[in-house]
Amino acid sequence: MKLPERTVERLSEYRRTLLEYLAKGKTHIFSHELAGLHNITAVQVRRDLMLIGYSSLKKRGYDAQQLIDVIGKLIDHPLGLNVCVIGMGNLGRAVTTYFTGKRAKLNVVATFDVDDSKVNRVISGVKCYHINDLKKVVDQYKISIAIIASPPNTAVSISEMVVTAGIKGILNLTTTPLTIPQNVYLEEYDMITSIEKVAYFVKGIESK
Amino acid sequence: MKLPERTVERLSEYRRTLLEYLAKGKTHIFSHELAGLHNITAVQVRRDLMLIGYSSLKKRGYDAQQLIDVIGKLIDHPLGLNVCVIGMGNLGRAVTTYFTGKRAKLNVVATFDVDDSKVNRVISGVKCYHINDLKKVVDQYKISIAIIASPPNTAVSISEMVVTAGIKGILNLTTTPLTIPQNVYLEEYDMITSIEKVAYFVKGIESK
Repeated sequence: MKLPERTVERLSEYRRTLLEYLAKGKTHIFSHELAGLHNITAVQVRRDLMLIGYSSLKKRGYDAQQLIDVIGKLIDHPLGLNVCVIGMGNLGRAVTTYFTGKRAKLNVVATFDVDDSKVNRVISGVKCYHINDLKKVVDQYKISIAIIASPPNTAVSISEMVVTAGIKGILNLTTTPLTIPQNVYLEEYDMITSIEKVAYFVKGIESK
Repeated sequence: MKLPERTVERLSEYRRTLLEYLAKGKTHIFSHELAGLHNITAVQVRRDLMLIGYSSLKKRGYDAQQLIDVIGKLIDHPLGLNVCVIGMGNLGRAVTTYFTGKRAKLNVVATFDVDDSKVNRVISGVKCYHINDLKKVVDQYKISIAIIASPPNTAVSISEMVVTAGIKGILNLTTTPLTIPQNVYLEEYDMITSIEKVAYFVKGIESK
């Protein structure tokens, strides 16, 4: 079964919420509670969970741990995947720190830069390599995912290096849109889009 | 007319692409080209542009500058909006730098932190204030949007301060989901979700 992109997004978000829920000592959650925390309808939540074969809604609500496991089995790689971060400026460092210890199945095992003051040092807890060693390090650590956080004008050439190195998934955090081969999965996030969306709805709120 | 969230997102993304297109000296673009750059269908592009009353498809394609203007008129605030960034660690600094000069209608006019070594200094080109002065500075600069990039355990209390200060839109970049009043617009971005999505589709690619 190949799930739609938006469903995978929501499942990942549900899991995040459920993990926080568990951490607070709560064990069960109703679909309407989960929906409320994500600003969506309970119908949407139930539809998503039915799609992944989890419809056992009881009087106590969903069993949080069970649901976390079901989501994990579906979206995680059974053996985990190794990730690298390219470009260790403020954004790259923030991303690397962000990830540390967050998900057992996704590990940032290497970072890359061109700056001599960064290369061969441990930054945000992970060793930084020179970008010229990308292919070697990707092979050595079996890295499948690259997060690109380099300056925008380098994004295209870096994405080419990443694809050549055999990486199968890219998260592009630069402002430069990328075009990559069909057999590589690309996710792009541009903060400007998020903030323009906020601005649009603020305009609506202010004009009321 | 209130546009759906996903439409606003796509319009913002189209504009980004069109701005890059213009910068390369190109003046016209076909719906299928715009679609290809965003990994969506030409039908979706045409549907979005018809929704905003822009269906004048000619043999040369859409006029990029004209389309940028139409999108801007719809999604931008006519007078522009002021933005602040809260939490000037790596992420906050990356966000502030990211924004500088990107969009004329959105200006980061202040940043906030609690760290004495940051407060009263100019960081990433913008003055940093103590978080205790939030309300004062928000009033002074008429700030409507806050980007929260503070440590996750402070996100809830900061969001309460932000709402009390009269801010109408929040972009939450922390890993802590927030609950805020109905009359404030909240957009949350968790990088973990993006990367889990990449990981899910990489799993599919690898098992082929």
